Amino acid sequence: MRLLITIEYDGTNYAGWQIQPNQTTVQGVLTNALSSLLKTEISLFASGRTDSGVHASGQTAHFDYDGSFPIERLPLAVNTLLPEDVRVIDCQIKNSNFHARFDVKKKTYIYRFYLSKISRPLKNHTMVHVPFLESDFDMDKAKVALSYFIGTHDFKAFCSTGRPVNDYRRTIYSADVFCKDGDYSLVITGNGFLYNMVRIIAGTVIEVALGKRNIDDVKKALELGKRSYSGKTYPAHGLILDSVVYD
Amino acid sequence: MRLLITIEYDGTNYAGWQIQPNQTTVQGVLTNALSSLLKTEISLFASGRTDSGVHASGQTAHFDYDGSFPIERLPLAVNTLLPEDVRVIDCQIKNSNFHARFDVKKKTYIYRFYLSKISRPLKNHTMVHVPFLESDFDMDKAKVALSYFIGTHDFKAFCSTGRPVNDYRRTIYSADVFCKDGDYSLVITGNGFLYNMVRIIAGTVIEVALGKRNIDDVKKALELGKRSYSGKTYPAHGLILDSVVYD
Repeated sequence: MRLLITIEYDGTNYAGWQIQPNQTTVQGVLTNALSSLLKTEISLFASGRTDSGVHASGQTAHFDYDGSFPIERLPLAVNTLLPEDVRVIDCQIKNSNFHARFDVKKKTYIYRFYLSKISRPLKNHTMVHVPFLESDFDMDKAKVALSYFIGTHDFKAFCSTGRPVNDYRRTIYSADVFCKDGDYSLVITGNGFLYNMVRIIAGTVIEVALGKRNIDDVKKALELGKRSYSGKTYPAHGLILDSVVYD
Repeated sequence: MRLLITIEYDGTNYAGWQIQPNQTTVQGVLTNALSSLLKTEISLFASGRTDSGVHASGQTAHFDYDGSFPIERLPLAVNTLLPEDVRVIDCQIKNSNFHARFDVKKKTYIYRFYLSKISRPLKNHTMVHVPFLESDFDMDKAKVALSYFIGTHDFKAFCSTGRPVNDYRRTIYSADVFCKDGDYSLVITGNGFLYNMVRIIAGTVIEVALGKRNIDDVKKALELGKRSYSGKTYPAHGLILDSVVYD
């Protein structure tokens, strides 16, 4: 039986999703908890890895299990074996050929930040401090810059090196930024994302909105694939994998 | 010259406000940073202590300083010497007889929580998980229970033991609870608060709203001063000292 779980985690204390030797990872603690609960060795396949410090409110992963543990009780039961900063929030039965990574239709990431001369300790856990005034930030420019990403593009300029990539093309379905009580959320949905792609898009858009980068650089970066036209890789702790959608 | 600073802090990693031997405290890191910046030994007097794990967005403290450091530059300068989870957000000159504790007119505390069968890792840093459904929580009952606290009462039933108290009477000016996107905030303003008072009020009101405690217990607790009529002391990490008001 193939099962799909949905997971929320606070990534602060994890070296990312993927199991690594001598590191605490989300996949590691989940694999241990599920294997212990179900009394068999479980192998987890996620929708994709998240980097060190990145959060998730809707990461997904599948695994196979053929024992008798009642599936409807699995989330509550496995949560008693997990650290408080990782929670299984849903569990569903899927077809045996379903794959949590290869069957992804779209993913949504949210990048959260706030603008303030002085940083705000109570926001810093899951939002990034941008040390400027709100009046320095041109929301319209940010929205226009984000609209350039919509569609199918080569995102080579929005990808950190260090992982092999065959094809830099990805399709973005929507990209926008919202502000509520001074908390900014950049929300982006696409069919897939390259290494650090959302964090570089966030850095680029924020630089454009602050007038520190020309908005045409976004077009040039997408056309020419040169990293010099895109912005800084913004910090991990502002990024949340919001949701993963399958057919 | 007497100066009043306003401080925001994430209390997670601190053993509360007050300096204690071999413990990291907010007063401790602030005293060190100010003394180092101003090159003289600074003594800080806060509006009141906050307990281990309690946050503040508007704690206040005064100190005396007669050197030549430009006051308008003090917040930004001292922040470079502070850990990231403590920030001085304002500094004002006061009369020489002003006292940050004795001159308090009112203080506002906010207690934050959410209702969910499964805990939400991304909320847990500054909100308390109440393991029930939102439909289990009777908002009207919570608001009525909170209204009983308004006025001048003996709050002996809403005070933890362990600190000497001469007078248990305090005046509450307003007490209400609000919900926004599933995030609940209990907001209470008064002329002063006893040890753990807001956390016991939060526990009592939440128990009443969940139908786990009779609403008349609140009246009995205020009339009889018996701790058995009030609820549990709720966790520190949901509590924020929001603001302190002087004349």
